[in-house]
Amino acid sequence: MRKENKITPWEVSGEVDYEKLIKDFGVSHLKELPRVFDENVLFRRKIIFAHRDIQRILETIRAKKPFVMMTGLMPSGKFHIGHMILAQQMVFYQKLGARIYIAVADLEAYNARGQSLEESRKIALEEYIPNYIALGLKPINCEIYFQSERSKDFKKANAYYRLQNVLARHVTFNEFKAVYGDINPGKMLSALLQASDMLHPQLREFEGQIPVLVPVGIDQDPHLRLARDISKRVKGFTQLSSTYHLFVSGLGGGKMSSSDINSYIALTDSEKEVERKIKKYAFSGGRATLKEHQEKGGNPDVDVSFQYLKFFFEPDDEKLQKIYQDYKSGKLLTGQLKEYTIKKINSFLKKHQKNLGKAKKKIKRYLR
Amino acid sequence: MRKENKITPWEVSGEVDYEKLIKDFGVSHLKELPRVFDENVLFRRKIIFAHRDIQRILETIRAKKPFVMMTGLMPSGKFHIGHMILAQQMVFYQKLGARIYIAVADLEAYNARGQSLEESRKIALEEYIPNYIALGLKPINCEIYFQSERSKDFKKANAYYRLQNVLARHVTFNEFKAVYGDINPGKMLSALLQASDMLHPQLREFEGQIPVLVPVGIDQDPHLRLARDISKRVKGFTQLSSTYHLFVSGLGGGKMSSSDINSYIALTDSEKEVERKIKKYAFSGGRATLKEHQEKGGNPDVDVSFQYLKFFFEPDDEKLQKIYQDYKSGKLLTGQLKEYTIKKINSFLKKHQKNLGKAKKKIKRYLR
Repeated sequence: MRKENKITPWEVSGEVDYEKLIKDFGVSHLKELPRVFDENVLFRRKIIFAHRDIQRILETIRAKKPFVMMTGLMPSGKFHIGHMILAQQMVFYQKLGARIYIAVADLEAYNARGQSLEESRKIALEEYIPNYIALGLKPINCEIYFQSERSKDFKKANAYYRLQNVLARHVTFNEFKAVYGDINPGKMLSALLQASDMLHPQLREFEGQIPVLVPVGIDQDPHLRLARDISKRVKGFTQLSSTYHLFVSGLGGGKMSSSDINSYIALTDSEKEVERKIKKYAFSGGRATLKEHQEKGGNPDVDVSFQYLKFFFEPDDEKLQKIYQDYKSGKLLTGQLKEYTIKKINSFLKKHQKNLGKAKKKIKRYLR
Repeated sequence: MRKENKITPWEVSGEVDYEKLIKDFGVSHLKELPRVFDENVLFRRKIIFAHRDIQRILETIRAKKPFVMMTGLMPSGKFHIGHMILAQQMVFYQKLGARIYIAVADLEAYNARGQSLEESRKIALEEYIPNYIALGLKPINCEIYFQSERSKDFKKANAYYRLQNVLARHVTFNEFKAVYGDINPGKMLSALLQASDMLHPQLREFEGQIPVLVPVGIDQDPHLRLARDISKRVKGFTQLSSTYHLFVSGLGGGKMSSSDINSYIALTDSEKEVERKIKKYAFSGGRATLKEHQEKGGNPDVDVSFQYLKFFFEPDDEKLQKIYQDYKSGKLLTGQLKEYTIKKINSFLKKHQKNLGKAKKKIKRYLR
């Protein structure tokens, strides 16, 4: 049964028609990227598939000038493989010279979900930040901050919140409604604080006017639209650039969700848990019987194990292509595909979990 | 012609029916105050005439425990005698042991009036703050801050703005509409920041939970109502207390306004300006002709010169009473009343302006 499609920054349900979203949201297909981008699986395989104003960032990289990559995290539950898309982009852009700004959206979690600031802090410090570090994020040119506590530098702290208040004059209630649909004061403050998150790196207390790239899941585009509209009306800001990535499938299909333990593979899952989850829950594109599968072939495009290989765990294009063909022809069976995926995930997690132990000791160097 | 009565935090027009406001706003008459209050003209003459929860402050004073007096200033034009009511209360409560918090409402001026932060800063530093100091405000237990730059202590800065964001979850759009009537995002952010102004002294980064008194003109009560309603829903706050004072008449009647130079006496006006303004503009309760005045008597209750004596410049009750009677009987003529008022104002301003010169050098000791 196909559920009604609903995409807002606070809810994603039903099947996602990305082409329709590109059209509805007015974003552009991502194409003709420099080689360094194509070396990255996320770009090469069009997992990052759309953008606004990416040219400005590409020109900045070409001219070897500084730029900022700004992103946020909504602290919720376990850090899972769905969170890796953003983490990998942090590492990618940091290597390209970007200054990395990461907002822990604890005030948004409070205002939109009623989650306490303490709970958000705990999750960010125990789950998200150590995993970013273990995935390769470096402390240089990187600042991770809490929305509720922007900076230990009083000038920066004042400037960030001042901007939130100043932006309020340049937006109307109707714009909030048009962008978000349902709105209340808490969500409105969150949206303005998010706009400040995206724009404040350009304040003189931070980097000064500078190109800023905000990579997001396409469900977060409303925040971008609003911040872009507002920034046009305030002096001193270069327009924001953004890229959009596909959702990572949950084990059973749909979006991977921190609130459903059987929808995700956490980066702290044990070998056995990974095996159990993939075997028991990973939605398969295989046929009902072995015989039918061998005769008619499976469907790798809806197979969740295949998606995980494609997104994260099989960087070798030839191998991935062979798996795709073999599964489609029926030569590769669902059990075999799952076994291969389990092996690849566990090999990755073994190394990652070793790094994670060390990462927890380094957190302080990332907080500003 | 009687204009339609309109009282909001951003507009006061028409004649003011204070008894109706007391009833409409649900505040209480101020009565039975300790002697130290009665020694103050503003209380003795019921210029400060109403309150909410003043008992808590009186008990705190009686128990010699600490409390906070919190107020704000909207930087606009010249500092005039209408601004003295609040300044005198700052000095009064500071002597009673209160910690004084003063917010320069520069973000509200930006969001509600479109005044730049630079302009607000200039007016606060050149007009309001030196006049507070010259009127007797001491730097100890006093902090004056800008809404756009709360503190040089990063913990305090973060805490103040965090509170603004946290409070947003505890209020609805309908409450804003009920309290303010017309509302837009800028005004909503201002209202939440004002709530944070009033409540943040109780955060652990500041004084911790403590009684807070907010003296205001009755037109500012909507801010109080909203802050009180919100604070009931958030843990850790003692309910706010407040007092309400009468408006100071402009020279021609109505509210004294910084935007109409001929409505006010600035504390920097020269002797000649004072003389000219009182003679030319001060609304008189006198009769049309000398003969009629002597026969029927004048009306001190609407006479602006008399109001200024009553509010500020004639502390001697007996003398004031005699002036009242003599004017009412027709014995005291309008010209004589004006001459007396001019003399009293100029005597006050001469001393004040001498203090003002010294005050400008002391400003830094008041800013936090």
